Amino acid sequence: MTHDVDARTTPELTNPRAERVRSVRALSGRPVRSRQGRFLVEGPQAVRELVRFEAGRVRELYLSPETAVRHPELADEAAAAGLRVRYGTVEVLEAMSPDGQGVVAVADRLGGAPADVAVAGPRLVAVLSHVRDPGNAGTVIRSADAAGADAVVLTEASVDLHNPKTVRASAGSLFHLPVVRGGDLADVLAPLREAGLTVLAADGAGEWDLDDLLDAAGPGGGRHSGMPDLGRPTAWLFGNEAWGLPPQDRELADAVVRVPIHGHAESLNLATAAAVCLYASARAQRRGGS
Amino acid sequence: MTHDVDARTTPELTNPRAERVRSVRALSGRPVRSRQGRFLVEGPQAVRELVRFEAGRVRELYLSPETAVRHPELADEAAAAGLRVRYGTVEVLEAMSPDGQGVVAVADRLGGAPADVAVAGPRLVAVLSHVRDPGNAGTVIRSADAAGADAVVLTEASVDLHNPKTVRASAGSLFHLPVVRGGDLADVLAPLREAGLTVLAADGAGEWDLDDLLDAAGPGGGRHSGMPDLGRPTAWLFGNEAWGLPPQDRELADAVVRVPIHGHAESLNLATAAAVCLYASARAQRRGGS
Repeated sequence: MTHDVDARTTPELTNPRAERVRSVRALSGRPVRSRQGRFLVEGPQAVRELVRFEAGRVRELYLSPETAVRHPELADEAAAAGLRVRYGTVEVLEAMSPDGQGVVAVADRLGGAPADVAVAGPRLVAVLSHVRDPGNAGTVIRSADAAGADAVVLTEASVDLHNPKTVRASAGSLFHLPVVRGGDLADVLAPLREAGLTVLAADGAGEWDLDDLLDAAGPGGGRHSGMPDLGRPTAWLFGNEAWGLPPQDRELADAVVRVPIHGHAESLNLATAAAVCLYASARAQRRGGS
Repeated sequence: MTHDVDARTTPELTNPRAERVRSVRALSGRPVRSRQGRFLVEGPQAVRELVRFEAGRVRELYLSPETAVRHPELADEAAAAGLRVRYGTVEVLEAMSPDGQGVVAVADRLGGAPADVAVAGPRLVAVLSHVRDPGNAGTVIRSADAAGADAVVLTEASVDLHNPKTVRASAGSLFHLPVVRGGDLADVLAPLREAGLTVLAADGAGEWDLDDLLDAAGPGGGRHSGMPDLGRPTAWLFGNEAWGLPPQDRELADAVVRVPIHGHAESLNLATAAAVCLYASARAQRRGGS
């Protein structure tokens, strides 16, 4: 597809202080997002994945001519999905989103509930309880996607999954798999357990060593009595970045598993620990597990 | 050990605009760090690990009375290491370091070179080439520590390892294992390869799948011809967070390995990919490898 860039991309929006610009920018605040039921998607990667995987949610799509030239696939794929692109000057895009690198979309909030996730018969789910840092939540969503997880579920006490930092850190993964919000942890886990998932809590003080579970799931492995089977459908439970999972949350799990610490570090970063656990499950389910 | 907190911790430093306060704060800038050969260590966790593992580097140590009460081990361990603690008001500590939560140390810069690392006969080393985000570098150092790596080496084109964000993100791991800076990548790798380490580059387009290498290193595994042995002493090479490893860097490795992507994600976050690779090596070296 060729573009007559000059004609098509002449900025229609030129005033960074216009009401429309301010109303897009306002979506960086949670109360406005809740009230309007919409959220901001910023930057070429996130917007491209939004258009590819969730075009039906796009309400508005803004591009600077410069970004349109640098990322020609953005306008092409938007057109193919029947979406209208509005062009704005660099200043307008910067005012809408200082982090958008010249491309911003307004999209309908993601929906769904833990029960919807459970009904789909998932084999690997990440559950985030009391995760408060938006960047961490986004990075866990990206890792869950990469590890082939079927869904990510956040408890109500966790960060808003529509936070712009979460959206950016997920690098588009937010649109690749169901990412839903539930109530408290017991409510979130109930439908997952009913769907047959084992609930494993990740915690530095866990009774089971992840490496032992991987050994047992592999060829020549053998599980001790009571040892969780890493090859079974699993919901991994991850807690707060600073204080982990409180005892009452750990008690809701079938087993508590620790990533082995071989050096002097006290613990792993939350997103890192989540990636190691999810990849271990993916490996056990694909290679050695049941 | 009991404290007469009131008597011992009466703030000696009360003026947030004092010259001493400004000179501590100035170490957040790289030129000042280079000129003085010192750097900032901020927050209870990082300062505690500094005092425990590298007390000989500490030049100055500042505490607010409030933080001294909340973290009594800080003053106790400093005293045990023969270090003098100076107490400052909350305002003074805040002026020295907005991120220090009431505790800041000034320490001599970390030294050492790739050749020193190589001489110690390491089995697992992380090499960072062109890593530019200070937080990412710190998180990789923390993961390397947790995975039991013997050292982390940064090329000259990478972020300053004394950057306050790197120090904070490493959560004290910077003081747990040698973290050294070298020249260009070829210079950094030469002594490691001479010491017998296999150099594996982590790259999404790698010819070898990490899971295949783990299978081959485990019980019942068998390596194809040319397949790298994950059980051998290894230096993992990680590239820039946005553009990875350029071809000339990949060519310096013995093999290029990809973390498998099971979902729709384009790639993993750098620190996450590093953790998965380092834990895979730790596992192969401890369980199945040679």
